[in-house]
Amino acid sequence: MGDIKRVAVLGSTGSIGRQTLEVISALPHRFSVIGLAAGKNTGLLAEQISQFHPSFIYSQENTPPTGAKYEFLSLEEMAGHPEADIVVMATSGKWGLKPTLAAVKAGKQVALANKESLVMAGEIITREARLSGAQIRPVDSEHSAIWQCLEGEKQKAARIILTASGGPFRGYSAARLAKVTPEQALKHPSWRMGQKVTIDSATLMNKGLEVIEARWLFDMAFDNIRILVHPQSIIHSMVEFADGSVKAQLGQPDMRLPIQYALTYPERLANPNLPHLDWDNIKEFNFEPPDFDRFPCLKLAIEAGKKGGTYPAALCAADETAVELFLSRRIKFTDIARLVGQALAEHKSTAHPTLEGILAADTETREKVKEMAGDNP
Amino acid sequence: MGDIKRVAVLGSTGSIGRQTLEVISALPHRFSVIGLAAGKNTGLLAEQISQFHPSFIYSQENTPPTGAKYEFLSLEEMAGHPEADIVVMATSGKWGLKPTLAAVKAGKQVALANKESLVMAGEIITREARLSGAQIRPVDSEHSAIWQCLEGEKQKAARIILTASGGPFRGYSAARLAKVTPEQALKHPSWRMGQKVTIDSATLMNKGLEVIEARWLFDMAFDNIRILVHPQSIIHSMVEFADGSVKAQLGQPDMRLPIQYALTYPERLANPNLPHLDWDNIKEFNFEPPDFDRFPCLKLAIEAGKKGGTYPAALCAADETAVELFLSRRIKFTDIARLVGQALAEHKSTAHPTLEGILAADTETREKVKEMAGDNP
Repeated sequence: MGDIKRVAVLGSTGSIGRQTLEVISALPHRFSVIGLAAGKNTGLLAEQISQFHPSFIYSQENTPPTGAKYEFLSLEEMAGHPEADIVVMATSGKWGLKPTLAAVKAGKQVALANKESLVMAGEIITREARLSGAQIRPVDSEHSAIWQCLEGEKQKAARIILTASGGPFRGYSAARLAKVTPEQALKHPSWRMGQKVTIDSATLMNKGLEVIEARWLFDMAFDNIRILVHPQSIIHSMVEFADGSVKAQLGQPDMRLPIQYALTYPERLANPNLPHLDWDNIKEFNFEPPDFDRFPCLKLAIEAGKKGGTYPAALCAADETAVELFLSRRIKFTDIARLVGQALAEHKSTAHPTLEGILAADTETREKVKEMAGDNP
Repeated sequence: MGDIKRVAVLGSTGSIGRQTLEVISALPHRFSVIGLAAGKNTGLLAEQISQFHPSFIYSQENTPPTGAKYEFLSLEEMAGHPEADIVVMATSGKWGLKPTLAAVKAGKQVALANKESLVMAGEIITREARLSGAQIRPVDSEHSAIWQCLEGEKQKAARIILTASGGPFRGYSAARLAKVTPEQALKHPSWRMGQKVTIDSATLMNKGLEVIEARWLFDMAFDNIRILVHPQSIIHSMVEFADGSVKAQLGQPDMRLPIQYALTYPERLANPNLPHLDWDNIKEFNFEPPDFDRFPCLKLAIEAGKKGGTYPAALCAADETAVELFLSRRIKFTDIARLVGQALAEHKSTAHPTLEGILAADTETREKVKEMAGDNP
């Protein structure tokens, strides 16, 4: 039993949470699920509880499912619980921020799928991780790729090349983009992901958030992070070193691969459920620069990242609110970037903000975007 | 001075040797040239001696250039000399075998560009390296790529994907191949290399030798080494791990990059002379399977590798002889594979041969191929 790692999965009923449990099911001798935390999907949570028998649970609904023995904890209590070895942060949006910080402060191995916590509070989280010795293990396929490419290297990267699928609307005209429906935007060409991330992939906001994430995870200047559109999504990202050598990590577009690596690191385990690349059917890789004009979210995100302060928090809040408005058909697809841009233009940032300052910027920006959308329905 | 590594370059006037000295010139605070060994190009050797002031020299001509102070050594003495930290084995063909073995037995860091020594005597060389603690650092771009991808990994690779440019005659018909001239075969589309290697690249024999080399360098079963044609020669090779993750190493096709890595390992040093990939001008990578029918040398090499014994030595000897005959216009391009195939079919191998057995197979096969060519001019 000594080798079994105890895993708490926060956001267990979402896309990353479900895929994490798939990976753990395939490797039962290596992992046990000690905690499960979910939002409103209590039905699926109940199923997961009966399959994995966690000691701790959290449900946003506050109605603990019956018929099982467990302790009800808050998200932060679970993330920092002494019995958890690895904490998988798979909640989406700003709800991940406080539990991520709790896990980091407790010195956990944090498998981080929640982009927003690093984007909003990268300075605080990386500082706390240095103090506690917590290890942040990226779960995003791009950051996992960079992490894998850096493994064993004695020096920092000179440059990061973040690949991007380009999303489902690569090459669309402005007029065509304005007419995009939620149904169209939710069909991603290569990745199986949650709704929010899928829309962010269509606007390229997701890639912008990843640039900010990479800046914190790998202590890399924004000017040394380059985005390269690679529609096949097989090269997950690349790293260039001082001598001009470039390393890339490749794989089928399947989140279970980076999830498993974040769980098993530094080992790699055979898992018959994971797909392998089939070179008989891979004929070409294409590359092109990203279109910053058609996809202004990308530029807005990088600018917010460079400005720092509470700009990245305002960016996340504005985007999350705008995506919700788009999914409920209150605004057009192209309004997402417009509203985010307007919110950032009006935002008053503070330098080196506290967690409270970050959360205040979040709340304020959400209200502002809803107001703006009300003015322009 | 403590950090300066003393380098002996065997084969200093050949393509790899000259590029090694270019790299060393750019990093004067890290390396000093302690030995230079050349073949018949005494003019260039004299220039190199006056530039690098080695303590030891070797010249095949046995006429030591005048006007400098140095000791004249044999290739084996130089390769195993106590004052050499790194030995660059850049002699071509079977002449590299005994000095490589001397360097390995002396426990050196051996930057190995000479394919033939591992192909002919991989079992002996890798056994001696284990005994002495010598480190064999591959200089071939493909094996350097694999080595770089394995760095820091806790487990062996599950599979190696050796990339191949496909050579200048990719897609040629059998009739067109039969008419290929030495001039055409010496124009390689992407790499700057010596004559023998360039012809071997055109027949794909080079890739076959690399498969055997990879088998020994990375202790990999032949069935787990796959060849993938990638005409752009930017991905230098790939490694697949147990979890399905693939790592690739990329760079401009320029031998100075793997040469420098073999010298500076485990560090990477900035060198303004080394080219960097320019992603503004990289639009696509293509992949296709190798054509074993049009390029029978590839199949012959892998079969010889699998059979083992003295077959790989016979392969090298037959190929080297046939390439010489082709370059002197005594046989056709397609005769290279025919003669190698015939020589292997008639070869009588011994299992786990000694060095003497390997060298006897070499001599015998060279004579046989010359005879065969005489019969079929």
